[in-house]
Amino acid sequence: MRLEVGCKITFEIDEPTPTVLMLRPRSGDGQWITEERYTFSQQVPVAEYVDTYGNLCQRLTAPTGEFIVTTSAVVETADHIDVAPGAPFTLIQDLPDDVLQFLLPSRYCQSDRCSQQASDIVGDVEPGYDQVEAIRRWIHHTVTYQYGTSNASTSAMDTLEQKVGVCRDFVHLGVALCRSLDIPTRMVVGYLYQLEPMDLHAWFEAFVDGRWYTFDATQAEPRGGRVAIAYGRDAADVALATQFGPASLTNMRVWVTQG
Amino acid sequence: MRLEVGCKITFEIDEPTPTVLMLRPRSGDGQWITEERYTFSQQVPVAEYVDTYGNLCQRLTAPTGEFIVTTSAVVETADHIDVAPGAPFTLIQDLPDDVLQFLLPSRYCQSDRCSQQASDIVGDVEPGYDQVEAIRRWIHHTVTYQYGTSNASTSAMDTLEQKVGVCRDFVHLGVALCRSLDIPTRMVVGYLYQLEPMDLHAWFEAFVDGRWYTFDATQAEPRGGRVAIAYGRDAADVALATQFGPASLTNMRVWVTQG
Amino acid sequence: MRLEVGCKITFEIDEPTPTVLMLRPRSGDGQWITEERYTFSQQVPVAEYVDTYGNLCQRLTAPTGEFIVTTSAVVETADHIDVAPGAPFTLIQDLPDDVLQFLLPSRYCQSDRCSQQASDIVGDVEPGYDQVEAIRRWIHHTVTYQYGTSNASTSAMDTLEQKVGVCRDFVHLGVALCRSLDIPTRMVVGYLYQLEPMDLHAWFEAFVDGRWYTFDATQAEPRGGRVAIAYGRDAADVALATQFGPASLTNMRVWVTQG
Amino acid sequence: MRLEVGCKITFEIDEPTPTVLMLRPRSGDGQWITEERYTFSQQVPVAEYVDTYGNLCQRLTAPTGEFIVTTSAVVETADHIDVAPGAPFTLIQDLPDDVLQFLLPSRYCQSDRCSQQASDIVGDVEPGYDQVEAIRRWIHHTVTYQYGTSNASTSAMDTLEQKVGVCRDFVHLGVALCRSLDIPTRMVVGYLYQLEPMDLHAWFEAFVDGRWYTFDATQAEPRGGRVAIAYGRDAADVALATQFGPASLTNMRVWVTQG
Repeated sequence: MRLEVGCKITFEIDEPTPTVLMLRPRSGDGQWITEERYTFSQQVPVAEYVDTYGNLCQRLTAPTGEFIVTTSAVVETADHIDVAPGAPFTLIQDLPDDVLQFLLPSRYCQSDRCSQQASDIVGDVEPGYDQVEAIRRWIHHTVTYQYGTSNASTSAMDTLEQKVGVCRDFVHLGVALCRSLDIPTRMVVGYLYQLEPMDLHAWFEAFVDGRWYTFDATQAEPRGGRVAIAYGRDAADVALATQFGPASLTNMRVWVTQG
Repeated sequence: MRLEVGCKITFEIDEPTPTVLMLRPRSGDGQWITEERYTFSQQVPVAEYVDTYGNLCQRLTAPTGEFIVTTSAVVETADHIDVAPGAPFTLIQDLPDDVLQFLLPSRYCQSDRCSQQASDIVGDVEPGYDQVEAIRRWIHHTVTYQYGTSNASTSAMDTLEQKVGVCRDFVHLGVALCRSLDIPTRMVVGYLYQLEPMDLHAWFEAFVDGRWYTFDATQAEPRGGRVAIAYGRDAADVALATQFGPASLTNMRVWVTQG
Repeated sequence: MRLEVGCKITFEIDEPTPTVLMLRPRSGDGQWITEERYTFSQQVPVAEYVDTYGNLCQRLTAPTGEFIVTTSAVVETADHIDVAPGAPFTLIQDLPDDVLQFLLPSRYCQSDRCSQQASDIVGDVEPGYDQVEAIRRWIHHTVTYQYGTSNASTSAMDTLEQKVGVCRDFVHLGVALCRSLDIPTRMVVGYLYQLEPMDLHAWFEAFVDGRWYTFDATQAEPRGGRVAIAYGRDAADVALATQFGPASLTNMRVWVTQG
Repeated sequence: MRLEVGCKITFEIDEPTPTVLMLRPRSGDGQWITEERYTFSQQVPVAEYVDTYGNLCQRLTAPTGEFIVTTSAVVETADHIDVAPGAPFTLIQDLPDDVLQFLLPSRYCQSDRCSQQASDIVGDVEPGYDQVEAIRRWIHHTVTYQYGTSNASTSAMDTLEQKVGVCRDFVHLGVALCRSLDIPTRMVVGYLYQLEPMDLHAWFEAFVDGRWYTFDATQAEPRGGRVAIAYGRDAADVALATQFGPASLTNMRVWVTQG
């Protein structure tokens, strides 16, 4: 399906602020960027680099005052996601080298501390896809989605205790639980068609049966219409805007329409 | 300056043909892609990867029949290029690791075979920028620009002998001569504003005084208005379309306008 | 100075266990490996790869029973470390792309949660090297070095509260505090000459004035005689042995002698 | 099998000469370095980096006078090489991204100029392993192995014409012919047990049926006992010593013994 996605982010900048943006979806991995626009309210020098996860990152110094970043894209992407009940656990020794890092605990996904909970959740389910789905479903039914209940420091262990959060927290918990079962798991940020309410979104992917599968604990059913912007271990890696200084995001508008 | 650049390439495909395209300029290195479009006449699955030079490459299988690739971009780029008479030779031991490879001979730039000619051309000129400029000027004045005089197998040694060629041949000769003086040199393909006649273009960059400088032996004077698409050792690395099978390029239109 | 370093690690393995080892120091960065030995008590297939931090990692499946890994090296390294009082903070916009990741919070270094403490510690000290040294000294004087007080889940926030730990905890706290001041910081594991008691060791490096400097909060004075084995964000990245299954390390002997 | 391999290279250096060495075999890809020694007659600072092919490269400035490099290793490697008659051609669209570059022509392997010869040699042989083997055998029977008949500028096209050369030339010709059939092929330099006369050696690998296979046109039969040091497109990439200045290699001794 063809989606038009985009966001307009307004910052209020007190003094020139070094900034790293991660707002450019890449073609590949099942999505093709047919059109893209990426503009700033003031003209500033921007340098772009590829991080260790393959994400395109933009470095700039945001100027004082109101600073608006607008980015949009027309993307061909699948209208469904692959589901694979019964797909087996991939043996550690068979994992590609660059997948191994997604087994490690990370800032917001302390997988070293939740293996008991993971075991309890998956019970006798066969190792692999079905375990991840059991975890996803458990989170969906157990954790309440509610804005304003978590912040930039909230981690999977917090969410496991408080049972409330937003998409980012759902992801962190899913990632931590899966990794504690030795299933490589990574966070994805991007757009989801018909997300309610519309916003930038986050979900996760787990590596089973030799490939990555998509999981989204905020949704009742598997849904396609996704546009991935960035991949990483957790939110520390895939912040859409990292600012080094006193900057405030005063407004953000996100849109996803079928084109 | 803001440029609108683009090209429309028509292939006639006899049977499904694996193809690698290199047609997406990247932001960074002094250019910022404000808008981009990239479409195909038929919908085909495309995978994108980053090659060892940092170029974005698109892999697809071109379907039988007429197959049209259209790509365009709006780009902020400099209206001039930096010139630096007297900029010194960078000592080999001070070169960044990833620049070293641009000292080696390559398919079309047999730098191991033309050090005598390079020495003759530069004479007593100080090592560094001025040597590269001497080579650039010598090529500009000595080699005749003429379509149809070279082909995909023509190398720097051929051009050195025949003294005729197109932009690609000018580049290969410049690269080979500079490398034979231990100056790292790389080929760039892209767009040049007001190129006559309009076409995709090629030039080269030499690493002196700790950074890359732009040189274009086809032009009388230093000119800005450039949009780089790909970097590499020579034309083998930066072919805009590499096709593995019986495909013919039947038409190509290129445009660059100030926007 | 020339050091002979090595370790002999004995594992008791209940069933064949996928393992990733990080025990091979790399030449470069001020150390040269003149000799190296790396053997296993049983012959097993081993594959080696380079992780995203440039560390050489060895993948193997440890066989059932007693499994002994022995590695040693003769290394030329400096007998002192560079100190640079007054070396200035490197502006974020001037950091190399691949250094940026060392500003982010990580599993054991929750830099997003300790900026107040970092500010209190450094007070009016000039941004840069002196801040890092103030933090290092503060940890050295405030945190008690004691075995058995921390475990694999202990993080910088735990150590900040409990004020006790081992070298790994000293590192995590130093890293978290420095990053909260926007100073890129990374963990290093390796050998230290005349460490008491001898063991594998950990310290950290901070990026100020355009380069990495070495800091070690376990030591009263700056000391050289170091051999780095691996670099990473924190202990999650640089575990010398990561085992996926029921394995126990039953014995480890480490040696560092001047050669 | 366990091999002890090594070489001792003596250079006569007129003035301090920047040098890149590629003399350190890496573990992985079927070989495990159990022991290694790497020393220089004078102590010089050395930096090591990984090139785009994954080879470990050592940078140093060779001092004036006699400069001796000695490197040796004890290596576990296979006593045979895999042969796979009938193994099929891997479709271009199925090649891993990082294998694609080994389809391109390179300095000494002008695959764009010898597809007719390749077709003549392979005739009706099935695409894939058998084509490579037909080429290997043809070279073995057609090209005479003779020292002193080629030099650093000799390319596959020269060898195709002159039908004489050394291992390096045999490789270049094999690589060029295979690539012209769209089979990814790369050069390997390293040690071969019981090579007569003993020397550093070169062979090639072709990618068929989803993996790399070893071919050696200098040998009558498939032989194991190989230790790879470096991989690349051709000799430009894998020179064991690249010197930027007036240096002469005055002596080289190579040894390979079973250990």
